Amino acid sequence: MACANYYDVTQWPVGDPKEDIGAVINSMLADLKRRQTSSDADGSGKPGAVIYIPPGDYPLKTQVVIDVSYVKIMGSGHGFVSSSIRFNTPKEQWPDLHELWPGGSRIFVELPAKDGDEAAGAAFYVNREGDPRISSVEFENFCIDGMHFVDDGTGEPNPENTYRNGKTGIYVACAQDSFRIVGMGLVYLEHGVTIYHADALNIHDNFIAECGSCIELRGWGQASKVTENLIGAGFRGYSIYAQNFGGLLISGNNVFPRGKSSVTLSGVMRSIVTGNRLHSFYPGMLELTDGASENLVSSNHFYRSYEPWPPMKDHDNGLDDLYGIVYIAGNHNSVIGNHFSEILDTENIHPQGAKPIILRVAAGTDNYIATNHIVAQTESGPTATDEDACFSAQVEAMLSAAHAQPIAVTCVCIDAGAEHNTVLDSGTEAQVLLDPTRNAFRATPHL
Amino acid sequence: MACANYYDVTQWPVGDPKEDIGAVINSMLADLKRRQTSSDADGSGKPGAVIYIPPGDYPLKTQVVIDVSYVKIMGSGHGFVSSSIRFNTPKEQWPDLHELWPGGSRIFVELPAKDGDEAAGAAFYVNREGDPRISSVEFENFCIDGMHFVDDGTGEPNPENTYRNGKTGIYVACAQDSFRIVGMGLVYLEHGVTIYHADALNIHDNFIAECGSCIELRGWGQASKVTENLIGAGFRGYSIYAQNFGGLLISGNNVFPRGKSSVTLSGVMRSIVTGNRLHSFYPGMLELTDGASENLVSSNHFYRSYEPWPPMKDHDNGLDDLYGIVYIAGNHNSVIGNHFSEILDTENIHPQGAKPIILRVAAGTDNYIATNHIVAQTESGPTATDEDACFSAQVEAMLSAAHAQPIAVTCVCIDAGAEHNTVLDSGTEAQVLLDPTRNAFRATPHL
Amino acid sequence: MACANYYDVTQWPVGDPKEDIGAVINSMLADLKRRQTSSDADGSGKPGAVIYIPPGDYPLKTQVVIDVSYVKIMGSGHGFVSSSIRFNTPKEQWPDLHELWPGGSRIFVELPAKDGDEAAGAAFYVNREGDPRISSVEFENFCIDGMHFVDDGTGEPNPENTYRNGKTGIYVACAQDSFRIVGMGLVYLEHGVTIYHADALNIHDNFIAECGSCIELRGWGQASKVTENLIGAGFRGYSIYAQNFGGLLISGNNVFPRGKSSVTLSGVMRSIVTGNRLHSFYPGMLELTDGASENLVSSNHFYRSYEPWPPMKDHDNGLDDLYGIVYIAGNHNSVIGNHFSEILDTENIHPQGAKPIILRVAAGTDNYIATNHIVAQTESGPTATDEDACFSAQVEAMLSAAHAQPIAVTCVCIDAGAEHNTVLDSGTEAQVLLDPTRNAFRATPHL
Repeated sequence: MACANYYDVTQWPVGDPKEDIGAVINSMLADLKRRQTSSDADGSGKPGAVIYIPPGDYPLKTQVVIDVSYVKIMGSGHGFVSSSIRFNTPKEQWPDLHELWPGGSRIFVELPAKDGDEAAGAAFYVNREGDPRISSVEFENFCIDGMHFVDDGTGEPNPENTYRNGKTGIYVACAQDSFRIVGMGLVYLEHGVTIYHADALNIHDNFIAECGSCIELRGWGQASKVTENLIGAGFRGYSIYAQNFGGLLISGNNVFPRGKSSVTLSGVMRSIVTGNRLHSFYPGMLELTDGASENLVSSNHFYRSYEPWPPMKDHDNGLDDLYGIVYIAGNHNSVIGNHFSEILDTENIHPQGAKPIILRVAAGTDNYIATNHIVAQTESGPTATDEDACFSAQVEAMLSAAHAQPIAVTCVCIDAGAEHNTVLDSGTEAQVLLDPTRNAFRATPHL
Repeated sequence: MACANYYDVTQWPVGDPKEDIGAVINSMLADLKRRQTSSDADGSGKPGAVIYIPPGDYPLKTQVVIDVSYVKIMGSGHGFVSSSIRFNTPKEQWPDLHELWPGGSRIFVELPAKDGDEAAGAAFYVNREGDPRISSVEFENFCIDGMHFVDDGTGEPNPENTYRNGKTGIYVACAQDSFRIVGMGLVYLEHGVTIYHADALNIHDNFIAECGSCIELRGWGQASKVTENLIGAGFRGYSIYAQNFGGLLISGNNVFPRGKSSVTLSGVMRSIVTGNRLHSFYPGMLELTDGASENLVSSNHFYRSYEPWPPMKDHDNGLDDLYGIVYIAGNHNSVIGNHFSEILDTENIHPQGAKPIILRVAAGTDNYIATNHIVAQTESGPTATDEDACFSAQVEAMLSAAHAQPIAVTCVCIDAGAEHNTVLDSGTEAQVLLDPTRNAFRATPHL
Repeated sequence: MACANYYDVTQWPVGDPKEDIGAVINSMLADLKRRQTSSDADGSGKPGAVIYIPPGDYPLKTQVVIDVSYVKIMGSGHGFVSSSIRFNTPKEQWPDLHELWPGGSRIFVELPAKDGDEAAGAAFYVNREGDPRISSVEFENFCIDGMHFVDDGTGEPNPENTYRNGKTGIYVACAQDSFRIVGMGLVYLEHGVTIYHADALNIHDNFIAECGSCIELRGWGQASKVTENLIGAGFRGYSIYAQNFGGLLISGNNVFPRGKSSVTLSGVMRSIVTGNRLHSFYPGMLELTDGASENLVSSNHFYRSYEPWPPMKDHDNGLDDLYGIVYIAGNHNSVIGNHFSEILDTENIHPQGAKPIILRVAAGTDNYIATNHIVAQTESGPTATDEDACFSAQVEAMLSAAHAQPIAVTCVCIDAGAEHNTVLDSGTEAQVLLDPTRNAFRATPHL
């Protein structure tokens, strides 16, 4: 590995990765840039480098700043473990635990918190002005661990449950092209991945969980992928969020609770959410807001259940069951061939006595909703008292589903202001609420 | 690569990977555990290690036992080749073959067979009691080759065709979290990957074929992915099997024959099978059994044809054509937007003269079956005499499909005991068999 | 890394990768083959090797010829950047650019052009006769850059916009098994990946753009995957092309313009196109031709807009808006649950005054078209003058879509010769053109 463009953080003469891996990587990047001469028109360019992080614990006290294309930072292990379970395990049991922290090629973020400055709290900060846009930076198969959440003054009894610490895993501030984030593990960060102005971005096959928010694509962007990830945000944040995007493909993700939503698309156009498995403890699992239009939502499995874990039972996303599992305020969207399981005991429905809404068009015209299957029944499962037990308990609950009782829901609701929408085979007459003089409707045949 | 947490099997002072790679890896794991001190509450932990297997042939005579988190075992080559074709090629032709065995970073399993003890026959055995569950073990891009199948007393003339040898590739005996199996090649093992009690498991982009069974998720599990794999089991076993699972995502797989089923979900709840291409030589391609409920099966392509290869023509899965290509014994499932090609010459239909059933609800209520397209016709292709020829022959057969004749099938059958199911646009009146006083039905419009 | 089967191009005694990486790799392959003794029947075989390309610029003047199984060629960076933007930026601005060329582990192809001999222009050429088929060659995470397109005598004012240079990235001339192409970056090649006679091929998670054609699967093939790629061909070529294939899975791809088609399946059978996001500037986005039959096209998002970038405005694929966004000449195909956005200002419709056709069955019987949602309206967005501006301009255009006006289209057209097709819920009576005495039809309900 004598090649000058291959860097190993444990082999670099400047700094000590066991003291501050951030300073080591910045020194490598400075070396790389020092060695790069101008591109010439004959073919040689500025190809970049790979920075390798072997398995190990590495504190990051200095933010890594990337302003050069073609840098790949890679490790050998995503290293996820549930820190949330550990922090809700009594301390007297900790000596019996096999390990306390995430692992793999693990960077643990020790940046000083700076209130309200998300960028300052990022382990990896990418920014470059000028042309071309910074391109082909890759992050692969290492762990970024925010370590602790902190008391945020909201009265949460365990500060490790606040999902706030001012830390971000990867923050891209500028327009960029063809970035890859693959095989990573992100945990206990207030923001996992925050990216502005993405083009041809690829967020694929990562494990991003127990973060305040997991993936936030902000500003605007186009022609990108969020695929095949295991994701689950905290109760305040987004699992997948995109803003003013065109041509975003969100597929093959397994999104688990909590997350105030599983997917929120604000002002997003001509994008696709397909083939995902989504599980949430709250309404508002998928939001198409701020005029999000011409999107396709198809072949997804939506499962909404009720928070079973005592440390989180006091938290929710503030929405009631009339909000909709899918909430649409936009035009010309397609919602086709999805399955919904709304599993709620009667006493957990809010407002009390209401019929929960599954698919809701709150505003907008020309949305097309067809062949969706809605299942709604009580849970009747055992009560779990810790997250580990929840795991088994949910299996128990599932197996006991045969004993569940149906609950009455509104499968589709088209609000009064919305019109020219089409609803086909997604609920019976009694289960669909709309003005048939302003929207087209064909009820699911029934006995 | 001087980092202590990076191990190379060809560079380790203990043992010889050319004699027994199992002993070498176990020695590395012992070294890792010896060096790990207790995690401390300040941030340093037990990050694990990576064990690298360069391309080469490595016999495994000692089982690798993994009981430590964050271990990644990786190679540089999945190394699949069809051993089945070779073992059905006359021995006198072997000297002309370019190579006889799979390759890449190849472990060939030489464990002694122990009848009826699957765990003992595993190349990699993972087990750890206590908390937390063992986490983030990763297997990536190497080959596990079981080498030979053996005579099992059933009279199979070629013992290499029995799909039995008591060997398993990866066996996880305990509850575990966030494991990754990616880019692997598994071949000629009685069981490829067998995992109990999985949480957030990721089996992605592997090549698992010519194994008795390929992927078996047993006991129970949740929130996991089996995606983007190339898979094909033997005639006795499962290509993808899951038991009592919740939140399993099975998507983007290309599952080829044989496999007694392509996907069997036993007692599985709220899971999703979408966007797969499935090909089989037998009925029972997808089974939802033992009360499997609230699952979504959508956007899959099912192709059932008849075994063309002489060495395998005496084998099948014992099911006849009234069993159903999709067999459901469960409630509240959704089967939406799938394509079925049932390509059978009349003389190959069993029982003789029967109308094959495509979608069958044998038991259960409230299943929703909509917009499925069933194609059924004769094959009329050429007869293939060896597996290589089958390859070209199947292409020929496809191209000659224009000359095929339609065969009569039952597109959907709802058995007598099943009720409150809904069937829409998945067959004409003549093609759907159900009691319309107990199930809702809308026929596909036709001329 | 002392293992003999691990090669690093910067560490090899023969040749100089900074002069000609092709000669270096060929020397490594010769060394590998020299060291391989015959496979023996006891278990040791010919496992192959990995060839590592660290980040850097490497000219390729000699074609790499691969005729041995289990070779993995890998880098540390796909290195894509838009060369098209750069070559359409005035030269006087070049000194201000951060970098001129793609990067990462970058091979730039300097083979002499040989007119009409595609194979001769391939950076990597794979061919082996005899049995077994060459297996498990892997290409991973490096960049192949064709550098320049050339004047082709067609009068294109900028020769860098012709998409012609006689160069191919990877060319596989023979039947092969279980190849993997993963994480690659291919740019400015007339042909990106051209593969004949594929079996169990896996083209996954690559970035293949600004190539004449991106992925071409020729001759015939079976049981393969083209998944999760970011792809976009030039105006003359194919983004994804397959010929006489059976069991091809095309899913999870984000295919952007241009490409004379996004997906062309010629004579392809029993394959599946699902969960893709497809964007094009021309009609004919998806073609099922030459009797392509029994394929499933589901859950895709099709977006067709009008070329906004001045350097490309003079180019198109020669098809008019009566050709169809989806064009089918084949039997028994399924088109279910797709979304279409046809966004065209009236003056850009050809022929002038025509009603564009979205889904067209030009020939064939028994196709099944259900629950597709077609949106058609004017763009009314700002005009972009360069590719970078296009990026922002498209976002602007999207956000202004609320001001768009509907345009009249034919949602589904079944040509006179085609019969026994079924069209359900994919357009109103006024939007569907077919002979109802020869095809089954149910209109989408409307007000």
